[in-house]
Amino acid sequence: MRFCPVCGHATSLRVPSGDNRTRDCCDHCGAVHYVNPRPVVGTIPVWGEQVLLCKRAIEPRYGKWTLPAGFMEIGETTADGAIRETIEEAGARIELGPLFSMIDVPHVQQVHIFFRADLVDTAFTPGAESLEARLFHENEIPWDEIAFRTVSATLRLFFGDRARGEYGTHTQAIVAPPAPAPLARA
Amino acid sequence: MRFCPVCGHATSLRVPSGDNRTRDCCDHCGAVHYVNPRPVVGTIPVWGEQVLLCKRAIEPRYGKWTLPAGFMEIGETTADGAIRETIEEAGARIELGPLFSMIDVPHVQQVHIFFRADLVDTAFTPGAESLEARLFHENEIPWDEIAFRTVSATLRLFFGDRARGEYGTHTQAIVAPPAPAPLARA
Repeated sequence: MRFCPVCGHATSLRVPSGDNRTRDCCDHCGAVHYVNPRPVVGTIPVWGEQVLLCKRAIEPRYGKWTLPAGFMEIGETTADGAIRETIEEAGARIELGPLFSMIDVPHVQQVHIFFRADLVDTAFTPGAESLEARLFHENEIPWDEIAFRTVSATLRLFFGDRARGEYGTHTQAIVAPPAPAPLARA
Repeated sequence: MRFCPVCGHATSLRVPSGDNRTRDCCDHCGAVHYVNPRPVVGTIPVWGEQVLLCKRAIEPRYGKWTLPAGFMEIGETTADGAIRETIEEAGARIELGPLFSMIDVPHVQQVHIFFRADLVDTAFTPGAESLEARLFHENEIPWDEIAFRTVSATLRLFFGDRARGEYGTHTQAIVAPPAPAPLARA
């Protein structure tokens, strides 16, 4: 942020009075602009033994597979958003189940929230953001071609719970991979 | 939003190409400014049979009682934020437990997330945003003086689970109260 969205004057990054973090502050109109992590909401759509994945038609991770998920919108609940994303990305009709995973991704300022879901039928069809929507048995999951670590973590937790015959609600954090080592000097 | 935080020119509210919702768009630099619901994170700090509540020293709900909670900050996890808020508002040292409730509040564009927690000791002390921090037995909870509906819902769920001897993870949505009826014509 360089300009105040309220009055259009330049902002400065400083700690407002009574606060303990730097914020984008407008010295003209006095507005303080807070930024917070964003919720991403999605589902694990199940049909019998199979799980529905979408092949991404957009960046990031074009061509990789994901569970249907996306940014939660203003005015909706986490459940509303999860159902909406499943319709938008997979054209899939679902019956939403319980919360399954909540995974923090602090280095990208997101919290990923997945619900279990039952497909109502198999008349799904990829939306504009997907190249393909397809059901996978556990042994067919393209683990090396999964778009996001929250998705592979959620799928592993899901198949683990399914094998145990009992589903839980799981929380974890995914931290950034270590920065690549600098090149050695010649 | 009236001005683009990137370039300072006026924004307009319209549906960007390829989208299906109105966004704040800058016709000068092309930026699209998305807004998403914000996570609020907190804890249910327990000491034996008692739960720790804070009396708010700030608006909204000055003088009302709440569980320690606040907006999740950039760079932290939900668990980090819940621990931080418990320190800031109640000066309380805790051992964080599992996720307990995730409550959508779509009319204020928030998701409230509470974790169970055990107090490490009773050397808590109200922070700058609290008038008082105090332990309550279930029969002492000031139900009519609770600051937020997500807090009273979480407390009711907590005492219900405790009575049953089994704690779950709970999701629900709190919708806006119905608008007051218009005055009858004379």
